Amino acid sequence: MATETISTPEQRLKELGLELPGHTPAVGNYLDGVQVGELLFLSGHGPFDAGKAVFTGKLGAGVDVAEGQRAAEFVTLNVLATLKSLLGDLDRIEKVVRLTIFVNSDPDFTEQHLVANGASNLLTEVFGKERGSHARAAIGMASLPLGISVEIDGVFVVRPA
Amino acid sequence: MATETISTPEQRLKELGLELPGHTPAVGNYLDGVQVGELLFLSGHGPFDAGKAVFTGKLGAGVDVAEGQRAAEFVTLNVLATLKSLLGDLDRIEKVVRLTIFVNSDPDFTEQHLVANGASNLLTEVFGKERGSHARAAIGMASLPLGISVEIDGVFVVRPA
Amino acid sequence: MATETISTPEQRLKELGLELPGHTPAVGNYLDGVQVGELLFLSGHGPFDAGKAVFTGKLGAGVDVAEGQRAAEFVTLNVLATLKSLLGDLDRIEKVVRLTIFVNSDPDFTEQHLVANGASNLLTEVFGKERGSHARAAIGMASLPLGISVEIDGVFVVRPA
Repeated sequence: MATETISTPEQRLKELGLELPGHTPAVGNYLDGVQVGELLFLSGHGPFDAGKAVFTGKLGAGVDVAEGQRAAEFVTLNVLATLKSLLGDLDRIEKVVRLTIFVNSDPDFTEQHLVANGASNLLTEVFGKERGSHARAAIGMASLPLGISVEIDGVFVVRPA
Repeated sequence: MATETISTPEQRLKELGLELPGHTPAVGNYLDGVQVGELLFLSGHGPFDAGKAVFTGKLGAGVDVAEGQRAAEFVTLNVLATLKSLLGDLDRIEKVVRLTIFVNSDPDFTEQHLVANGASNLLTEVFGKERGSHARAAIGMASLPLGISVEIDGVFVVRPA
Repeated sequence: MATETISTPEQRLKELGLELPGHTPAVGNYLDGVQVGELLFLSGHGPFDAGKAVFTGKLGAGVDVAEGQRAAEFVTLNVLATLKSLLGDLDRIEKVVRLTIFVNSDPDFTEQHLVANGASNLLTEVFGKERGSHARAAIGMASLPLGISVEIDGVFVVRPA
């Protein structure tokens, strides 16, 4: 798997034509993430750009699966922006351990797993299959902060600097 | 507690008259579980049999507590099938650490904790109270993938092979 | 930050005029929390007093943000009561690592993050900013056990006794 050994995650993002949004830090008495030993616990992230929510609305009630996948991908870019801000270098992510993909859902929407693929696929492309594939739960929420379509939290293994 | 020291988890399942369903692996860019040190983080699991969802529908809207408990128990059998697939031997589970029991719920349904007992009771019967009892959160979801009634993820302590 | 070095968490609670409710233990085949190494995984907690739910109802449907924040604060007092029961001394909490704040929400309610501040602010006041600030996810649930307005689970780093 040449891409995994040759490209850094930052190079992979460039090859994919993707740019990280500016980092939107946690506001208030909480943090973007907390590291204990090698485990980094990341806060729930939304699809923010310059501090503004850019994907809002409910899956199954105005937002379709393709749009939800783009939302999940954009949340993942926010996650990567936070990781870069915390660690300096995305290459310090040794393993994506687990994600929860919270999908803002109409009670009749049943494709949270497809929406979640927007996050899972991007992480695997950026970090390669070995480092990027992860455990996950994809679930349907009654609502989310600011009406965002997708929120994602996660646990990561971090290499020493 | 004779059963804890004498019976293996596999023997306990047999004594309980329960059979593990075939393992339904994660499909796509994610994994059944990821282990870091002794901690195994398991993906959200559903009540699948031969790859088909067998308990669907919402608690409080067509699915009652007893049926929800059977769903939670069947999800737990799926969890055990995954653990056996990943570890070879359920006896390598040293401790069930925590579960999230996601219950597909009508907004007026308020007995997620009773549904969750379907999972908690079975794990305690299979692993014994010391190894099988765990921290948990039981919560009501707007909806779940494929309309399943219950999804469960978890963290486990694993013994070296 | 004099208060962090001089006051114990128990003293801070007293200075804040707050009293811990009696500890409402987990009933059934699950536990208040499970510790693995230095990590303590706590079960989902509700706003209970003497075993009775004292904040019920949905945000955005009869419960407003201020009331939700008081609910989140009271759940946090329950969390602290459990930590004290498990550890003997709140000073053994070295770090609040992460919280999930599950907010019982009408589908149109979008201020789960403000409700969650009731928990985040109190933990920071009790443990000081360095130990008390944490990663978190604030999310909107279709419903919660017994109709409680807020449920919170968490991960903590614990010092040896």
